[in-house]
Formats: sequence, structure tokens, C-alpha cells
Amino acid sequence: MNILVRISCCLVLFTVPSCNRATPATPSISPHQINQISVINALMLGQYDGVMPVREMLRYGDFGLGTLDHLDGELVILDGSAYQVRGDGQISVVPLDHTTPFAVLTRFATDGKFPCPDVGSLVELESHLNEALMQRNNFHAIRIDGQFPSITLRSVHRQEPPFRPLSEVAKSQSVWTRTHVSGTLVGILSPTWVTGISVPGFHWHFLSDDRQIGGHVLDCTTREGRVRYTVCTTWQVRLPDSEAFNRLELGKDLSKELNEVESARAK
Amino acid sequence: MNILVRISCCLVLFTVPSCNRATPATPSISPHQINQISVINALMLGQYDGVMPVREMLRYGDFGLGTLDHLDGELVILDGSAYQVRGDGQISVVPLDHTTPFAVLTRFATDGKFPCPDVGSLVELESHLNEALMQRNNFHAIRIDGQFPSITLRSVHRQEPPFRPLSEVAKSQSVWTRTHVSGTLVGILSPTWVTGISVPGFHWHFLSDDRQIGGHVLDCTTREGRVRYTVCTTWQVRLPDSEAFNRLELGKDLSKELNEVESARAK
Repeated sequence: MNILVRISCCLVLFTVPSCNRATPATPSISPHQINQISVINALMLGQYDGVMPVREMLRYGDFGLGTLDHLDGELVILDGSAYQVRGDGQISVVPLDHTTPFAVLTRFATDGKFPCPDVGSLVELESHLNEALMQRNNFHAIRIDGQFPSITLRSVHRQEPPFRPLSEVAKSQSVWTRTHVSGTLVGILSPTWVTGISVPGFHWHFLSDDRQIGGHVLDCTTREGRVRYTVCTTWQVRLPDSEAFNRLELGKDLSKELNEVESARAK
Repeated sequence: MNILVRISCCLVLFTVPSCNRATPATPSISPHQINQISVINALMLGQYDGVMPVREMLRYGDFGLGTLDHLDGELVILDGSAYQVRGDGQISVVPLDHTTPFAVLTRFATDGKFPCPDVGSLVELESHLNEALMQRNNFHAIRIDGQFPSITLRSVHRQEPPFRPLSEVAKSQSVWTRTHVSGTLVGILSPTWVTGISVPGFHWHFLSDDRQIGGHVLDCTTREGRVRYTVCTTWQVRLPDSEAFNRLELGKDLSKELNEVESARAK
């Protein structure tokens, strides 16, 4: 075996995917591009059928959030792996052939970082971040690693057709609070003017360091956190090319319903 | 000179840009991706400073429309070249170092084609196209080559700072009607839900075969036309990364003003 062949073999060994990591993002996807699969109003209207395999989705980024085919829980994309948080809170790595009906992700790169203030609520955290991140007409991916003395999470249960609108389904979500968790907030901050297309403002999912606790974040307190963020100046939206998608009335103002879904607390 | 070197030389000769054509679009830009520079509400609010050189813009497509730095006329991108239609109707090829504050373009590919019905108005043409193009939640680039017994065009005059909103500037636009013109309608059809970000519905610019007549189309009649279209299922928005852009209140509903600007007829 000559030296060149041996080097090639080493490279092959080093690039074999671990967990469900996809092959590295294609060079076309820059770290400053936010990529989304479908539009939020399609999900609001009950389009829960997956439109892109997770294998393909992971080419668009290594950090982000979304949901899975049949609205089967919350999707967290962290360090290049995709995790599913089911309605019962169980977490698993998503098989690459599973699909997503809606996701937002980017190739995370640290454009800026600062210590996370210790806060008593998610509202307080977002208020601090709004002051720190001034580019309100660009997108941000925000990663906060730290301690969470308290964190309230939710997930949704797998749905079967005929699908009901998300505002209906969210009424039967599971909500739970965990204390003294070490983990990562996975956040996407979008400009206010993406209404109907993406989620305006902050959208947070969470994953604990031991991958045992996660979900869509409704509230939290923080200690000893570290904020890192990427500014995304390119926004790419992949639209489904299906008849079902093209029949939807996506222009409806569903922002009130979306706000209820995103911030709904335990009943 | 061996045969391989000779082939390389030929390739180099064939790829030298002619006119202001940029190097071919990068492989990352597929023909089914609509690309836009900035958002329409930034233009509505008077952000007329160019944010991308035409050289870079042309990497995103060979077909589209927009405007130029300082709102210096209408921009028509056809067959890979960028043309400027000034406020006085004069047309020239845009130097590659000039910049655009807003443009929408794609790599044109024919996904479908059909004879253009002979119509008596632009409204009638759009009504026919709405029936023919069923994918209302995707974008379309529409190219119509044909005869135009009558075509009414407008352009805008170069502005100097402090810039006034587009709805103010459009009041002093130039409007002219030409008869018996042979040329090409360059159209972008966007879903209704892009309000504030892009121009919902149809947006038409025009260029005559002899490159002497052009502008933003307010009305036309057609004869012997041929429609070709591309369906774009990926939508990419390049956002300016400037302080001026990030200060803008882009969430305002300016759709009434935009509609007036887009369809304003001669006073």
C-alpha cells in the first residue's frame, strides 16, 4: 500500500458519520445563511407531512430547531446531530431517513460571545439579548450553554390524519419543569417582519448535556451561562412543491394563534 | 502544444464575458431558486443606496428585474446582461461595478411553455397566466417574447439624499406608451404572502429586441407571444448588513403604497 492510498484510507475513516450526522454541509451553505424548510403558516394549517429527509436537512446546517413528520415531537439540531423530543419527553437521535415538515437551521459560527446574565425568566433573558444584539433586521442563531436552575419545556404528540390546525393540537401538548439541569438553549431570532413565513422574534428549543431532557422552551432561569451567536444575512426558504402545499391559504394572519402555540404554558 | 492545452485554451476563449455578463452563476445557484437582494419595504422607505455590485448580482441569475443605486431607473436582467432604463427612457448596459439596492433574479430554465394569448390589457394577460400557472405558493419567473401593439412603460429618476419614500418619488415618474414593439416581458410572479419582503403577484419589466425601449410595465397588448416559465421552489433573500438597514421599521404594512407605486398610471 503506498503512502497516498494510506492517507486516503485515513481520511475515509475520519469522515464516517457518527450518530446521525450528515455529510458536512455543502460549501454553498455559508455559516451566515439561515435555512428553513417550508413556512410556519403551512404548519399552523396542519401540514404535518414531512417534506425533506433529515439526511438532506442536515446539509443545510448543524444547529437549529423544528419538528418531525406527523408533528412527532420537537426537533433539536445541535453540533450536527438531530434529536427528537417526543410528546412523552423521551429523546432519541433521529434516523436520517425520517422527514421534517418544518425546520430552521444554520451552520453555526461564533460571530460574537458574551457571558449570559443570570436571569429569573425567559422574558428577562430575551430582554437582555434584544439589547445585546442590535441587528434587528437580520437573523441570529443563538447558543447558550449553561446551568438551568429551572426550565419548563413542552413537546407535542404525534398526529394522525386528518390533521387538525396546530393551535388545536397544542392544547394537548405535554409540559414539564425540570430543575438543576446543565445543557444548551438552541435559539433562532428572526426579524418581526417574517410573520406567516417563519416565527418572528425568539424561538428556543433545549437539550441537556446528557441528552435526557429537552423540548420547546416555555420558561427558564439561568446561571453561569455563555452566549454565542451567529448573524445570518442570507435567508433561504425551501418551499414544498406539492399540490397540498400549493392549495394552502398561507396569506392568512395567524400570528395570534402562533403566539399562543409558541408561548402556551401548562393549563 | 499538446491537445489538452489546446482544449483548455479554447475553453478559456469561450468563457470570456461579453457585454456585462458576469462569470456563469456558481453551481450553488440552481435554476429553481429565486434570489433577491434586500427587501421591498427597505426600498419603499427610501433605502436607495446600492448594496451589491451588479457583477456579484449576476452570479445569482441571468433573468430578473430591480433598480439601481440612487433609484437611477429600472433594471432589466435578460439573457445574462443587466440593462438600465433611465428616467428619460434611455437604455444602456449597466457597468459591472454599479450597484443595486433591490433586485429579484433567477437562472432561467424552461419548466413549461405555451403560446401567449393575444390580450388587450396587462390585467387580461395576468388573468390568463393565473389560470395556467397553478403553483400559487411557489415563485415563477415568466418570460414572454412577442409583439406588443401597445405598451405603456415607466421609469424613475435618479434621486439624491436625503431620500424620500418611494411612494413620493413615484409621483414624478416618467410614463410613455410605444406602439408596434417587438420584445420581451421579464416577469416575476411571487406568492401573495411575501408582502413587505418582495412584490406580491406579478411584477413586469420590458426590453425591446433592439434594446431601445424598456421600463417597468404598466399596461400592454400582445400578439403572437410565446410564454416560457421557471418554477422556483427555493427563495433566497440577501439582507444588507448595514446600520441603516437594521434601523428600518420593515414590519410596517406598506402594501397599499406599494400597489400604488407598482400600478401607477400616467397622471
